Amino acid sequence: MLTAQVGIEVPFQDVDLMQVVWHGNYFRYFETARAALLRKINYDYPEMQASGYLWPIVELKARFVQPMRYAQHIRVHADLLEWENRLKIAYRVADTVSDKRLSSGYTIQCAVDVRSGELQLVSPPVLRARLKDYL
Amino acid sequence: MLTAQVGIEVPFQDVDLMQVVWHGNYFRYFETARAALLRKINYDYPEMQASGYLWPIVELKARFVQPMRYAQHIRVHADLLEWENRLKIAYRVADTVSDKRLSSGYTIQCAVDVRSGELQLVSPPVLRARLKDYL
Amino acid sequence: MLTAQVGIEVPFQDVDLMQVVWHGNYFRYFETARAALLRKINYDYPEMQASGYLWPIVELKARFVQPMRYAQHIRVHADLLEWENRLKIAYRVADTVSDKRLSSGYTIQCAVDVRSGELQLVSPPVLRARLKDYL
Amino acid sequence: MLTAQVGIEVPFQDVDLMQVVWHGNYFRYFETARAALLRKINYDYPEMQASGYLWPIVELKARFVQPMRYAQHIRVHADLLEWENRLKIAYRVADTVSDKRLSSGYTIQCAVDVRSGELQLVSPPVLRARLKDYL
Repeated sequence: MLTAQVGIEVPFQDVDLMQVVWHGNYFRYFETARAALLRKINYDYPEMQASGYLWPIVELKARFVQPMRYAQHIRVHADLLEWENRLKIAYRVADTVSDKRLSSGYTIQCAVDVRSGELQLVSPPVLRARLKDYL
Repeated sequence: MLTAQVGIEVPFQDVDLMQVVWHGNYFRYFETARAALLRKINYDYPEMQASGYLWPIVELKARFVQPMRYAQHIRVHADLLEWENRLKIAYRVADTVSDKRLSSGYTIQCAVDVRSGELQLVSPPVLRARLKDYL
Repeated sequence: MLTAQVGIEVPFQDVDLMQVVWHGNYFRYFETARAALLRKINYDYPEMQASGYLWPIVELKARFVQPMRYAQHIRVHADLLEWENRLKIAYRVADTVSDKRLSSGYTIQCAVDVRSGELQLVSPPVLRARLKDYL
Repeated sequence: MLTAQVGIEVPFQDVDLMQVVWHGNYFRYFETARAALLRKINYDYPEMQASGYLWPIVELKARFVQPMRYAQHIRVHADLLEWENRLKIAYRVADTVSDKRLSSGYTIQCAVDVRSGELQLVSPPVLRARLKDYL
């Protein structure tokens, strides 16, 4: 339904002393792919704030199948899985050259009303409107 | 069976433009707690490497219940859940003052033989020996 | 005149594939020491914002004499050097055990009026008042 | 003589709670530009290690003229300034759209013999050879 992909080259400082990308840094790459996806519906962070909602990540999971190394070229795919009550986005990371699957994961975000601070149990109309505009 | 806890103060640079800790930075705190736990059995990263095995993280999950803010004092508990075939460690983050639960998660690590690069389907004897020594 | 020191243990994820702390991560340690210093005069970031001024860093320099490694215990000293027109703080990093000098540096911050966005060529009265209260 | 430039979009997690890029993260962008420059002479980190030398950063300086914000497009120029005894590289960061200067800085690296651990007071022949090949 809604998907995006970005190309990334693993930077020096993301690699740890075991010569592989430190697991916490994968979320930098997921972040880039998520921004690309949300921009497709004109609802990246600045637009979220302008709409009166923040969308903090409330859950995430990742599986690391193959390590990633310095200067490796990777492709991160982001796919929108759920949007009715929360925003669930899945990620797949593959080596750009070999197309081998390297890792996968997901993030779940919930809308929070900026003024009241209240968690929304249903996605606010603005998200549906943006999705509808895109589709 | 094996547990550890560390106190951390949220540093300035871990907080994002929404005024809360960026989700990828939680793994910094989990890392500190995991190191404290593994040191109890004398099997932190340097000892892992010396033993001929690396233990890359192959899976992780986290749930973020309450946001964390700049200079907040938190306590991270790490608990060893599995060790026979892989190392599964659970984490709980609580506010130091209110004791309120802020987040939780787990990481799973598998042993990889440094020389052959082969993934071990059963934890190598060295881990069992270290655990036995401690218990 | 105004000085602070903090003890830090080098965390796993700050170390790069050359087995030493990546240079950009030193500013994490400087940040912790600077916060300790500014708290002594009750003028850390939250108090800065509340006072109507931000103090972005406009210049920094660092010299790296000896590399730092995983789990090394270090002590970071921060010293206030200038405050009349800008905030200049010097840092020295030493090994906790050997007391050997590892690195040094400084940061310069200037006050910016939150409302007008204007850079202040003279430190605002609030900084002088906080310093006077402390001394 | 030797110069490189890279285009970067400021990622979400590099921005701090004051809505601007945290100063320590600028070195991520310098790193990317430095890698682009060193690759032109086929002497990036893997080739350095293969040549028997590491090149740790021994000094750096940066000036921050204008803050950078989330999703801002920037261009980082790297210029080789010195190479005979050490590697000194200068950086300029400009806004891609307005071409306005945002920040500048430099890094100095010295060669260290991997086997002996000795600091080289003169750049090893391999660097001169790579530069000569390029020029």
